[in-house]
Amino acid sequence: MTDKFQQFADRLDSALLQGDNAAIQDILAECTSAETARLLESQPPKERLQIWALVPTSSCAKVLLALPKPLRRTLIQQTEETRLIMGLSQMQMDELADIDADLPMPVVSAMVQAMDAQRRQRYERVRDYPDNSAGGLMDVDSSALRADVSVKAALRYLRRLRQREGELPEHLDSLMVVDRDNTLLGIVPLSLLVSTEMDISIRELMSTQVTRFTPQMPASSVAQVFKDQDLLSAPVVDDEQKLIGRITVDDVIDVIQDEADKALYSQAGLNTHPDMFAPIVRSATRRALWLGINLLTAFLAAWVIGLFEAAIEKVVALAVLMPVVASMGGVAGSQTLTLVTRGLALNQVNRNNIIRLIGHEFSIGALNALLWAALVAFIALRWFGDWQLGLVFGLAMVIVLITGVVAGASIPMLLKKIGIDPALAGGVVLTTVTDVVGFFAFLGLATLFIL
Amino acid sequence: MTDKFQQFADRLDSALLQGDNAAIQDILAECTSAETARLLESQPPKERLQIWALVPTSSCAKVLLALPKPLRRTLIQQTEETRLIMGLSQMQMDELADIDADLPMPVVSAMVQAMDAQRRQRYERVRDYPDNSAGGLMDVDSSALRADVSVKAALRYLRRLRQREGELPEHLDSLMVVDRDNTLLGIVPLSLLVSTEMDISIRELMSTQVTRFTPQMPASSVAQVFKDQDLLSAPVVDDEQKLIGRITVDDVIDVIQDEADKALYSQAGLNTHPDMFAPIVRSATRRALWLGINLLTAFLAAWVIGLFEAAIEKVVALAVLMPVVASMGGVAGSQTLTLVTRGLALNQVNRNNIIRLIGHEFSIGALNALLWAALVAFIALRWFGDWQLGLVFGLAMVIVLITGVVAGASIPMLLKKIGIDPALAGGVVLTTVTDVVGFFAFLGLATLFIL
Repeated sequence: MTDKFQQFADRLDSALLQGDNAAIQDILAECTSAETARLLESQPPKERLQIWALVPTSSCAKVLLALPKPLRRTLIQQTEETRLIMGLSQMQMDELADIDADLPMPVVSAMVQAMDAQRRQRYERVRDYPDNSAGGLMDVDSSALRADVSVKAALRYLRRLRQREGELPEHLDSLMVVDRDNTLLGIVPLSLLVSTEMDISIRELMSTQVTRFTPQMPASSVAQVFKDQDLLSAPVVDDEQKLIGRITVDDVIDVIQDEADKALYSQAGLNTHPDMFAPIVRSATRRALWLGINLLTAFLAAWVIGLFEAAIEKVVALAVLMPVVASMGGVAGSQTLTLVTRGLALNQVNRNNIIRLIGHEFSIGALNALLWAALVAFIALRWFGDWQLGLVFGLAMVIVLITGVVAGASIPMLLKKIGIDPALAGGVVLTTVTDVVGFFAFLGLATLFIL
Repeated sequence: MTDKFQQFADRLDSALLQGDNAAIQDILAECTSAETARLLESQPPKERLQIWALVPTSSCAKVLLALPKPLRRTLIQQTEETRLIMGLSQMQMDELADIDADLPMPVVSAMVQAMDAQRRQRYERVRDYPDNSAGGLMDVDSSALRADVSVKAALRYLRRLRQREGELPEHLDSLMVVDRDNTLLGIVPLSLLVSTEMDISIRELMSTQVTRFTPQMPASSVAQVFKDQDLLSAPVVDDEQKLIGRITVDDVIDVIQDEADKALYSQAGLNTHPDMFAPIVRSATRRALWLGINLLTAFLAAWVIGLFEAAIEKVVALAVLMPVVASMGGVAGSQTLTLVTRGLALNQVNRNNIIRLIGHEFSIGALNALLWAALVAFIALRWFGDWQLGLVFGLAMVIVLITGVVAGASIPMLLKKIGIDPALAGGVVLTTVTDVVGFFAFLGLATLFIL
């Protein structure tokens, strides 16, 4: 299937080259909205607009939803309002609420005016929840059963519901059960509903041990619970336990993917959804910020080296070897940093085990420190024929490797305490520590023992 | 819910401290198997064994399945065979096939001997598929309908099936439809089955456009298709389109999480599932390998510096500033590297757009290069009062920043071409390039212009 997507990409490329719009339309007709979104992402801006114009109006809504935010915003800005209104008119209310901030005001008002009272009410209910909350994730069109009816009556109700609405909500694996006031009583898995006697009541069938979410709950916590409990869907209730919506696993998968991507991208100071073909100035500005921060820390390290100019002038081998010390400290530390940062995000590292974890990392670091210190000391001795230099090099290596792992283990927790995202800032802080300590240890020891 | 887990961790910690096994059992009774697995992961080896001994035998199977492999293997080795046999006896055959390689031979034979013919056949069918394939992911207990029966008859069949088996398979959102020879004809969503007329036939109801997988398909491709098509489950068929199993979304989520974790961990040369409290010597060995590779590249950079010893001896400021050059190149490159490596994994970067992407990155790099070159040249001029040094510093910065982004964009594709995982090796190769180019450019230019 990976190859299938590569085939789409290949065909699209030759169609673009030949300016063959009919062929592009054929390709788009074969793609799911997620695949179309990925094809758009992998193209430069000009080609994106050309392809986007050929996406059937009926697919616009789903493709826009599948795109990462920055690209979605750009495309919306370059789409005619009439096309937007037509394309989005069939959208679910909770989906509309996800993208309305990016839509032009006239489009939003036109759409709100065209809504019937029920849809407008649904829309207004979900509009104000942030994307990264349970409220932002939920669907509001959940069909619920009453507890006091029989299975037979429930099936009749569902039949009528489908006749009226055309189809039941997507990804339905279970039905919520509510009382007259819409208070959540339980859920009934569809697999139970299709395999039970007709005269049994829903109340007897339903499970009352239901994992439920409040709309304010962060999306990342929702995702964790879905993973822990292998859920396919779960109800969202307000403070009075009234059913207000339903979260389905397909939206949770997007959260899981986003969280994981964020961990990866933020290490390099990139946006959560970096657009490969974002305008050059915008990309450059974002990255410049990161380069600027790193320049500061690099100059801090340079300043430390500057303190020992006299030593370097006398023993120039120090300049040759010092980057090795700093680099090894950085590598050792970043292994620990990755482990602990991820453990923190996954709730495996917490205040109860951090001290033991630092101790554990210290032992690993010390073991590696002894191994590598002996080796590098020997290499320096052979290279420069100076046993004092070898000794100092080895000692500095011990110091920086141990500092690296201990810093790598401690920094994420400390950053989290003061409210900074460890995934974002951990690497910079670690490198600063290992560079400064590395240069200071190596050049400082050299000044003491060699000069 | 995050807080709920933190509460479990806190309670567990104080129970461990007081040696209160009854309290530990209470906590474990409240946890899902995934939560128990996370609690085990966050504890050091001794405490793990103590907790593991208190996990009810009936939960052993699910907890073992939820654990990352290395820890699972360790726990199995330290569990009595009778407890294993009892704990695993109720396991699904496809789940058993996932862990049997880690079980002691006597346990496996005891379990195989206790199986009835049907279970043994199922087990043997899935045993040989690798974990990271569709065959390794699938469940084999899929219940299928015949096309020529009515909805009413289908519901009766499901009722009898549940009475016989106790419950229907987990996570059932749709039923496969097969003919007499078990050839897959289509699927029927349960939501359709509960909302249709009783006398309609399954053939009329079923959808024949079914996404299906072959058992050999890589798990990562399966996950991509699940995401693209928002699937909850999908059939696995053999070459003759005969139904052999069913993949459900909860297992796919684990694949997605694993792939994302792998991308993160492999950057730092760690295992896919690093165990925070793995035995010290084992952890140290694994990391030593990575440190060794990095030491080689660091010495390569040192060798480049060594070529210019004479220059450094005369102008010691070169030694002070050279790490700044190398570090900025590394940072600029790693941003591009992260972007392109991830894009490659997500199929957004391919042979069709890599050249344009490199061009795009070149422009971003050039823009930033000019900005930072001007600034650092000025700083060097003010610091050391030497305009030639400033000029050389700025020029070297331009070279290394542009080299960094171009290398960051090209390396992942090149590594993939020669069959090396870009997520694993990209960072090391990039750092080598930026270090060598950075030192060479700065010290080389200095030799040309200053000396």
